[in-house]
Amino acid sequence: MRGVMLYAPGDVRVEDRTDPVITEPTDAVIRIAATCICGSDLWPYRGVEQVEGPAPMGHEYIGVVEEIGPDVRNIAVGDFVVGSFFASDNTCEICRAGYQSRCVHSVPIGSIGTQAERARIPLADGTLVPVPGAPGPAQYPALLAASDVLGTGWFAAVAAEVAPGKTVVVVGDGAVGLLAVLAAKQLGADRIIAMSRHADRQALARRFGATDIVEERGKAGVAKIKELTGGLGAHSTIEAVGTQESMMQAIRATRPGGHVGYVGVAHDVQLDGMQLFFSSVHLHGGPAPVRRFLPELIDLIVRGDIDPGEVFDLTLPLEQAAEGYRAMDERRAIKVLLTV
Amino acid sequence: MRGVMLYAPGDVRVEDRTDPVITEPTDAVIRIAATCICGSDLWPYRGVEQVEGPAPMGHEYIGVVEEIGPDVRNIAVGDFVVGSFFASDNTCEICRAGYQSRCVHSVPIGSIGTQAERARIPLADGTLVPVPGAPGPAQYPALLAASDVLGTGWFAAVAAEVAPGKTVVVVGDGAVGLLAVLAAKQLGADRIIAMSRHADRQALARRFGATDIVEERGKAGVAKIKELTGGLGAHSTIEAVGTQESMMQAIRATRPGGHVGYVGVAHDVQLDGMQLFFSSVHLHGGPAPVRRFLPELIDLIVRGDIDPGEVFDLTLPLEQAAEGYRAMDERRAIKVLLTV
Repeated sequence: MRGVMLYAPGDVRVEDRTDPVITEPTDAVIRIAATCICGSDLWPYRGVEQVEGPAPMGHEYIGVVEEIGPDVRNIAVGDFVVGSFFASDNTCEICRAGYQSRCVHSVPIGSIGTQAERARIPLADGTLVPVPGAPGPAQYPALLAASDVLGTGWFAAVAAEVAPGKTVVVVGDGAVGLLAVLAAKQLGADRIIAMSRHADRQALARRFGATDIVEERGKAGVAKIKELTGGLGAHSTIEAVGTQESMMQAIRATRPGGHVGYVGVAHDVQLDGMQLFFSSVHLHGGPAPVRRFLPELIDLIVRGDIDPGEVFDLTLPLEQAAEGYRAMDERRAIKVLLTV
Repeated sequence: MRGVMLYAPGDVRVEDRTDPVITEPTDAVIRIAATCICGSDLWPYRGVEQVEGPAPMGHEYIGVVEEIGPDVRNIAVGDFVVGSFFASDNTCEICRAGYQSRCVHSVPIGSIGTQAERARIPLADGTLVPVPGAPGPAQYPALLAASDVLGTGWFAAVAAEVAPGKTVVVVGDGAVGLLAVLAAKQLGADRIIAMSRHADRQALARRFGATDIVEERGKAGVAKIKELTGGLGAHSTIEAVGTQESMMQAIRATRPGGHVGYVGVAHDVQLDGMQLFFSSVHLHGGPAPVRRFLPELIDLIVRGDIDPGEVFDLTLPLEQAAEGYRAMDERRAIKVLLTV
């Protein structure tokens, strides 16, 4: 089969890879219907994370089950499925508490690589969620978004305890931040302030439910949020970037007793204990347990209540993955869908 | 009146201070019945926090109202009252959300100094809570504990979401840590693991409800907690020290999705973003909004359901405050009550 490999920073190649096979009795092999490039794929692409290349790439996927191991019970050959970026048994104590991304048997799907024609999915019963009916290509973008960016934005909003009556700030206008706006809207937030200085992303944020846009960043951004919230700060702030500036911006934009939900992978972030202490905020985040939300998100998508697929603003065939990485790296695209 | 002043690190003096008077219409002046020395008083005493001496000391107090300003409505002359270490209006949006220590009009009582015969308490209506009946000296230790260490330990337990069915770890065996054990017991925790290597404090922790004692610290301490919790870590961890080691010990002892409540004033703590991210814990803490809990805590004390006064293991007259500071600094005493 064909698949994407990263050889070194900036060096993405599409090449022949060995076809996946069932290796554990709980595995499934799926034929990928669509996959995509994640903001987090840019960390190794940019050399910020070390590349042990050549490494398979991709952890977002939708597709059709082609084969199952003898212990798979809930998933059948022919099912159209969505999974997320950690395989999880969905039965251990951590999974049952809703933290499937930290399952005691978790396997990172990034190590398998779903920017490919096929993929082996471990722990298929716990990991994969079937989509009712037979979704067509028109539904692929929305379902594929559920695999990571929607689920991650949704988790961030839940971690930030978004609820009716609350004012929500979203730091970060990438796909996750934009879908956190959508999640905040669905969860009933009164007011949703998106922090963005890009006209196209501001427009999408407004379509997803943002009521206000703040272009300022850092201290000026925090001052603006305070001004918009009677001097107190937001009830709930979503951090979807993962830098020192964005984390501190999120914490400072939140009122005492408020909640910060953070899902930006926190590279080179150091939180000062005294600043955190006197912020009096709640802080929760980490790798999103997307699996917790998948059934609900698939349901919202199938019913047509939400269209998170709008974050894909560039579609390319798998063979042109390298151009997709370049477009995202140069911020010419918010998110790139790869057709298989 | 007589009162405690800190002139420089290690230099505590009891001297004549000007008697307090009503300066704002919302003030009360109280005659202090008992006060005490806080672990946080040791930071300037040890020179870890800068001393702008001579500075008045003390922020814990119980006493009788002697005078009230013309706008005070809910507190009357003669009331026996408990207050905490931040004056708060108890009416602003932040107070109503339960974060009175971050009231938009908050005044730190430490800047007034309650290790004295009398004290002016700002925002008396919001700050002071009357004790029913006429408590006698036998009840002073318990009521005085409510003023800070009990309220702070209680907040830590609430911030750590302690509840029935949960396993709780308490890092720190000072007065706050010990009373966090008591709080965890009251809040219904199944199992309470106190981390302590001092026999006397272990004994008190057990009296307050600890089911297990762990003497190891740092990595060995975390390994022991994992061993006691099926490899997963605690549901709820209370951090009541405020050092880098204690914060990381608390975070690492907690399972993904679990809750860390931290109330140790975080001096020189830097939290690594990646470690926090992949811990997947909830983190909440800061200066405890003791006022939120005071009515409930006073009620529990007056009914005789709890006796937090046991944390006081040395009682001295106010005139011997310097010896009290030495005893706490040298860890000869857990907590020192000063009679007035």
